[in-house]
Amino acid sequence: MALRDVLHFPPSDRAFLDPYLPPTSTATATTTTDTTTTTTTTIPRPTRPFTTLTFATSLDSALALAPSTPTPLSGPASKAMTHYLRARHDAILVGVGTALADDPSLNCRLAGAGVQGQPRPVVLDPRARWDVAASRALGLARAGRGRAPWVVVAADVDARQREALEAGGGAYLTLPAAAASAPAAREPAAFAWEDVLALLAARGIASVMVEGGGAVINALLLPQHAPLVDAVVVTIAPTWLGRGGVVVSPQRTVDATGVAVPPARLRRVRWHQLGEDVVLCGTLRGGAD
Amino acid sequence: MALRDVLHFPPSDRAFLDPYLPPTSTATATTTTDTTTTTTTTIPRPTRPFTTLTFATSLDSALALAPSTPTPLSGPASKAMTHYLRARHDAILVGVGTALADDPSLNCRLAGAGVQGQPRPVVLDPRARWDVAASRALGLARAGRGRAPWVVVAADVDARQREALEAGGGAYLTLPAAAASAPAAREPAAFAWEDVLALLAARGIASVMVEGGGAVINALLLPQHAPLVDAVVVTIAPTWLGRGGVVVSPQRTVDATGVAVPPARLRRVRWHQLGEDVVLCGTLRGGAD
Ligand SMILES: NC(=O)c1ccc[n+]([C@@H]2O[C@H](COP(=O)([O-])OP(=O)(O)OC[C@H]3O[C@@H](n4cnc5c(N)ncnc54)[C@H](OP(=O)(O)O)[C@@H]3O)[C@@H](O)[C@H]2O)c1
Ligand SMILES: NC(=O)c1ccc[n+]([C@@H]2O[C@H](COP(=O)([O-])OP(=O)(O)OC[C@H]3O[C@@H](n4cnc5c(N)ncnc54)[C@H](OP(=O)(O)O)[C@@H]3O)[C@@H](O)[C@H]2O)c1
Repeated sequence: MALRDVLHFPPSDRAFLDPYLPPTSTATATTTTDTTTTTTTTIPRPTRPFTTLTFATSLDSALALAPSTPTPLSGPASKAMTHYLRARHDAILVGVGTALADDPSLNCRLAGAGVQGQPRPVVLDPRARWDVAASRALGLARAGRGRAPWVVVAADVDARQREALEAGGGAYLTLPAAAASAPAAREPAAFAWEDVLALLAARGIASVMVEGGGAVINALLLPQHAPLVDAVVVTIAPTWLGRGGVVVSPQRTVDATGVAVPPARLRRVRWHQLGEDVVLCGTLRGGAD
Repeated sequence: MALRDVLHFPPSDRAFLDPYLPPTSTATATTTTDTTTTTTTTIPRPTRPFTTLTFATSLDSALALAPSTPTPLSGPASKAMTHYLRARHDAILVGVGTALADDPSLNCRLAGAGVQGQPRPVVLDPRARWDVAASRALGLARAGRGRAPWVVVAADVDARQREALEAGGGAYLTLPAAAASAPAAREPAAFAWEDVLALLAARGIASVMVEGGGAVINALLLPQHAPLVDAVVVTIAPTWLGRGGVVVSPQRTVDATGVAVPPARLRRVRWHQLGEDVVLCGTLRGGAD
């Protein structure tokens, strides 16, 4: 591993995150194996992993200047934090839009993470559009610097892609795509988020960090998905990217009197300055408003 | 003054704001009188006041659910901070969109502010659309709980409105409207911001807090206006208002190669949690990026 790639996130910076992280014990108990438990076990496997939403935005809530423009937003300290969070989750999940736009590494570059500390990259790619064979993430897995991706598909997969992915230790996982029910989902067909999370739980993933992009985050911030999300960690950089970016701003509904209803509010809120950025931690559940 | 209206902002919460506030001495020196200085003075009057941009947004950078929907965003602590900031500025400025939508009080309700501690409300109303005679701000001025507004106009003013405003101690100030040069300004004609600030300086305003709304903030965040802004204080509430709100997100330009250029980045950044909100302080000038 090139030394310039190694990130450090000092223990003194970690404490504020603790109340929002998945329990370490659970992670250890369910991630040492990828096989399903037998039906005789007394501890039932959870139906979904501990789920954390994590992303970085500008002050005007943009994830990127444009879908095809990778946009560095967070400073070095918040970048290191993201990699610390990756080390604390079994899997990281992104939509195929992010995979296509950024060819992201999706590994953990925190000093000392090692191979065991690497999260499993999961890409939602219903139409199997991603060229995983040529991806940076699979390349890193081959080099022992990350785990090979799991690609969740609803379509048939090219044989060459499957061969390359499986040879690298990854897998295509097939899930039926349902007609979109959420108002935000305009795609012809989408996986139900319950199904995606159940699939991961069934494969031994006890914690997943959902990193983006816009379509994925906006869907998970809708009120009907709040019960699926355990923690939200947003990094905000003190910059305005301006009109036209990839924006986090979920669709609203209107109440019976026609008044717009804000889609989400965080509870148990903690703000923590890291460098010039701020990290906002909270949860979407519990407490009336 | 009704007791429920009185706000408290404890001194322990004030320190983080200090580096971003207008100098107290200047404010005292130039605000004890509203008449212009004589030409023999040795200290030239500054061409513009110390200018602070202050506003409250959601996580998705919305000032309000809709132009006509007053939307309480900040919690009690950040609300008190806003009134402390009002006490520390000679004037507060809003666009007529805000005056029409919210009929805002535009006074300082901080405990002990008194009449002398009240800022001068300034409303940019080129077409003289605001019914100032019936406004809450003028009513509060009549009751000795605020100063009467100055309304900056480019058009002829209704005689009844002028009479009511002047009787209450306010004034219409006339400024020529220039053809809009900024890409964000789509109005048929707009005041140059330099002219607005020079007008205030000439009338003894040493510090002005620009509070909104969307059109005003987005214009002042454009790169060409950065030299006019001394400090920015943004309160962010941990909520998403969802698509369709009044959003702070300035227009972008593109560079010579066609790549989008982010309009603004803050320097000398400080984030401070107040209740469940965060207050972001910074400046738009100084330092390359
Ligand atoms: N700043 C950050 O923290 C950050 C993090 C990640 C990404 N990003 C940025 O975000 C941008 C990409 O965002 P994006 O909105 O274009 O794409 P995205 O959210 O990454 O991916 C969206 C696509 O993923 C698939 N998908 C998502 N949810 C699905 C579901 N429930 N069921 C089935 N398929 C689902 C769909 O693929 P199909 O279209 O094939 O149906 C959908 O179009 C990039 O610019 C990237 O740089 C920023
Ligand atoms: N959350 C907060 O902190 C906060 C604070 C303030 C306001 N708000 C919200 O913001 C919304 C109002 O925003 P808005 O964008 O509709 O209106 P706005 O910015 O308050 O006012 C815009 C109008 O002011 C006049 N104006 C502004 N700049 C001018 C210039 N340089 N020269 C001449 N005229 C100028 C123009 O009037 P003409 O159209 O007549 O030309 C313009 O249309 C409301 O919903 C309010 O609740 C929120």
